Amino acid sequence: MTLLLAVKGWAIAPWFDRFSRLLPDRRIVGLGEDYDPAEIRYAATWKQPPGSLANLPNLQVIFSLGAGIDHLVRDPHLPDVSVVRIVDADLTARMSEYVVLHCLAHLRGWRYYAEKQRTHVWDDDRDEPAASDVRVGIMGMGVLGGDAARKLAVMGFQVAGWSRTPKAVDGIQSFAGEAELDAFLARTDILVSLLPFTPQTQGFIGRRIFAGLARDGRIGGPVFINAGRGATQNEADLLACLDDGTLAAATLDVFETEPLSDTSPFWDHPRVTLTPHNAATSDPDAVAASVAGQIRGFEAGEPLRNLVDMRAGY
Amino acid sequence: MTLLLAVKGWAIAPWFDRFSRLLPDRRIVGLGEDYDPAEIRYAATWKQPPGSLANLPNLQVIFSLGAGIDHLVRDPHLPDVSVVRIVDADLTARMSEYVVLHCLAHLRGWRYYAEKQRTHVWDDDRDEPAASDVRVGIMGMGVLGGDAARKLAVMGFQVAGWSRTPKAVDGIQSFAGEAELDAFLARTDILVSLLPFTPQTQGFIGRRIFAGLARDGRIGGPVFINAGRGATQNEADLLACLDDGTLAAATLDVFETEPLSDTSPFWDHPRVTLTPHNAATSDPDAVAASVAGQIRGFEAGEPLRNLVDMRAGY
Repeated sequence: MTLLLAVKGWAIAPWFDRFSRLLPDRRIVGLGEDYDPAEIRYAATWKQPPGSLANLPNLQVIFSLGAGIDHLVRDPHLPDVSVVRIVDADLTARMSEYVVLHCLAHLRGWRYYAEKQRTHVWDDDRDEPAASDVRVGIMGMGVLGGDAARKLAVMGFQVAGWSRTPKAVDGIQSFAGEAELDAFLARTDILVSLLPFTPQTQGFIGRRIFAGLARDGRIGGPVFINAGRGATQNEADLLACLDDGTLAAATLDVFETEPLSDTSPFWDHPRVTLTPHNAATSDPDAVAASVAGQIRGFEAGEPLRNLVDMRAGY
Repeated sequence: MTLLLAVKGWAIAPWFDRFSRLLPDRRIVGLGEDYDPAEIRYAATWKQPPGSLANLPNLQVIFSLGAGIDHLVRDPHLPDVSVVRIVDADLTARMSEYVVLHCLAHLRGWRYYAEKQRTHVWDDDRDEPAASDVRVGIMGMGVLGGDAARKLAVMGFQVAGWSRTPKAVDGIQSFAGEAELDAFLARTDILVSLLPFTPQTQGFIGRRIFAGLARDGRIGGPVFINAGRGATQNEADLLACLDDGTLAAATLDVFETEPLSDTSPFWDHPRVTLTPHNAATSDPDAVAASVAGQIRGFEAGEPLRNLVDMRAGY
């Protein structure tokens, strides 16, 4: 009944403390510690080295401790057991904060006015579209996309969503699949990606996507906001499209390689706003409590919640 | 039945065009034109020179063409006739865009991360409170304040309102009058002013207000956002409070004197974000249509809507 903490890139001690408190009757071990592979029943993971969950004959459930499951999708040696992801109301709310903030910042010309402030120019003549004049399109309409769409609509934006299969959200225009992608892009001024990482989405957001966005909008050209996964964007295309005017601006929270290299051209690009993959940080206490609760429920015969379909990748 | 356009600081020709189209059966004149004072029945105004509406014996209604009525409140020679202000859904929505944008920007450390981007620092270790950890307080709970409060609550903030008389908005904690001001300030991390200009609010927002704000919040010190009227803030106090740490930051759309002087210390202040009084611009076509509609209704015996109580000043 041992819980394996397969965590890399994060301090492990706070996770030991949380799970020891929440599951005082269990043994909790980290990768590289001295344990019998047969004793591991659960794994709580974040960016574990590929293969580190293989050869655990009694492993039953893998939990992700962070918002993404890229580290599981990408592990070629992942055993075929149940995978549980985080669905956390706090994380959902934070993601919507980020999406609404950055859509409003583009709408209201944040960088434009920052430059006016820097140069002491009182410019009250700029054309100011309202949110109701601007079309936001969200790619990836899961729990996060649905919440962001609803809040953007409250702010007045015209909102549509695109996903692999149709998702109904009240008041949100829904597009689905390859067949409706062009129509979705053609009505979109601000494209927000919340796509998960899957083999299908890897490098998916490139020139073909950017060139399909609306060019008749009120905010001076198409804008791209990526708060999803870095591996879904083609960064060479992104830079080329920013430089040739296919895109007017971008806000990026995620990158193909993180942390972003000091020499990346994104840092100093005049039309890029970047943040350090912090659009939605999860509250570790809430995550640990959720995992511990699921373990207890599972052992009491309850079904696991928030299971990942590993064939679809989300 | 002539309409007088008493407008200063704005181009008058577009207003002539709009009203000529909407009221083709009326004479429309500007200040300084050759007209008989007795023919003026209505005045559509913006920052008219004080006294320019006096001595119009048949004047019945004064309309404001902008969001404020400071120019009317401040005119010592204003005749005692009905005064109508703008209540425009588009303007209300734009004001809420501004308030939500700037509350989220302070919450999510916009300036902090802009500096990290400038210096190529990938900083993903900053403490990130959620909106639900942060208390916003709105002073001035009229139509604009109520809409902003509701939308801030949708984003997750803890929202309270303060006004002269109690105003009920679902889900918003309500404080009223001098007696409840200290309690309102003590629970507020981000203070948003949407107060109108009145003799009572002139210079009202100064050290006494800033020193009363919460100092135990999650965003590193009290923040002040003024999207209301410049004359309500004491700018000497504001600068002193920013410099001695009583305030952590401010976002200012309005100033005692506009346009802001090129030598104002606000431009280069490291903790001030400023915008050129554009939090909520009104759509001139919508405003003109509303005024023309009210004139026709008034002449058909309908009551005027959105009348100002000139004794209260709003």
